[in-house]
Amino acid sequence: MKAVRLFEQSWEKTLTTMERIEKMRVSEDALDLLFRKARTHRAWLPKPVPDELLRQLYDTLKWGPTSANISPARFVFIRSTAAKERLRPSLAPGNVEKTMAAPVTVIIAYDLKFYDKLPRLFPHNPAMRDLFVNNPQLIQETALRNSALQGAYMILAARALGLDCGPMSGFDNAKLDEEFFAAGKYEDSEEEFFPGGHVKSNFLCNIGYGDPATLMPRGPRLDFSEACTLL
Amino acid sequence: MKAVRLFEQSWEKTLTTMERIEKMRVSEDALDLLFRKARTHRAWLPKPVPDELLRQLYDTLKWGPTSANISPARFVFIRSTAAKERLRPSLAPGNVEKTMAAPVTVIIAYDLKFYDKLPRLFPHNPAMRDLFVNNPQLIQETALRNSALQGAYMILAARALGLDCGPMSGFDNAKLDEEFFAAGKYEDSEEEFFPGGHVKSNFLCNIGYGDPATLMPRGPRLDFSEACTLL
Repeated sequence: MKAVRLFEQSWEKTLTTMERIEKMRVSEDALDLLFRKARTHRAWLPKPVPDELLRQLYDTLKWGPTSANISPARFVFIRSTAAKERLRPSLAPGNVEKTMAAPVTVIIAYDLKFYDKLPRLFPHNPAMRDLFVNNPQLIQETALRNSALQGAYMILAARALGLDCGPMSGFDNAKLDEEFFAAGKYEDSEEEFFPGGHVKSNFLCNIGYGDPATLMPRGPRLDFSEACTLL
Repeated sequence: MKAVRLFEQSWEKTLTTMERIEKMRVSEDALDLLFRKARTHRAWLPKPVPDELLRQLYDTLKWGPTSANISPARFVFIRSTAAKERLRPSLAPGNVEKTMAAPVTVIIAYDLKFYDKLPRLFPHNPAMRDLFVNNPQLIQETALRNSALQGAYMILAARALGLDCGPMSGFDNAKLDEEFFAAGKYEDSEEEFFPGGHVKSNFLCNIGYGDPATLMPRGPRLDFSEACTLL
């Protein structure tokens, strides 16, 4: 008798867990906003993006997973005309106009010395820092991959917060790094927030409220059978 | 009189647009599910992931933006024990147990010949294919970055659909590519879905319904002032 009740309780608990699992999806509207109806924008409505929203954007995207929690991405939010002008010479011609017009342009960069923060970010395995510190190829590959992941988290977090994005890789990384990250300068350079030439650009992303009237027809995507296989 | 009415209509239209903009955010629950309360999982509830849900996962993530819509990511969804055993020798020791136990392990890979699909994916600029075709360094860099973006879209799409993820880069890419993508074999190899040695692994991700009872305390993240600067 007691065993039966325990079984019933356990079964009820399982049912509750399963129901909870089933319900934990975002709404169809949210799927549209994040993925299915979201578009890359090139023209912007005259609506500013407050700094407070950029802080909220970072405080959302930062929770996305990275390898051993290394969190290598660094974000430069360019809002002022003066800083936009510093960016201009690095941009591919086709990216100049839309970038100059965007309320914010983000440089998604990565810190090659991300491992110095690992004792705090990954405290339960102090050996993780040593895995990276003398392996420049692993550092580069890991920083590139994980800062790209974080850049994608930023794009989707921006959409989740009602913003539109225009990501771009058409620019001169070396020239941009020289201008913003003191590439090649001495370790004790006071240039910007990220001194010492160990921060490198990954890609750029314009942020604002896109003007839907200017959108072109959407590009197609690959079918499941072209991009995926089930084994 | 007519001018005033036109102005009013236009102003009403602007107000409607602005209201629409303000409302277009996902719910607080969705932000929690996608970012703020989501966790990387290592242990899995005994609940299968149907193939239909994997198709829905791809049909969601595929809308995420890539450079010139190149869509270089290829996804191998490993569900069977036999295919898991082919994966086992490539895994870092710490990743074996959780991967063998996961309902699905995804190989997020990239196709170095992504440019062959550009005439269809980016029809309004046929010159884009030529930009890549004889530039192996640009191909490699672009495929890596954009397949990482697509891998991040997959992680967040999975969470949006109620699934949990456990992404990993602790494995031997060359060994895995040899096993699954016929690395180094001839162009006419019939190995799997992606023949010819031009598909390479980027990272792995376990997918299923995570067991919250097994989670450790969450790792901290960098503060805004450590990771971001406003210019």
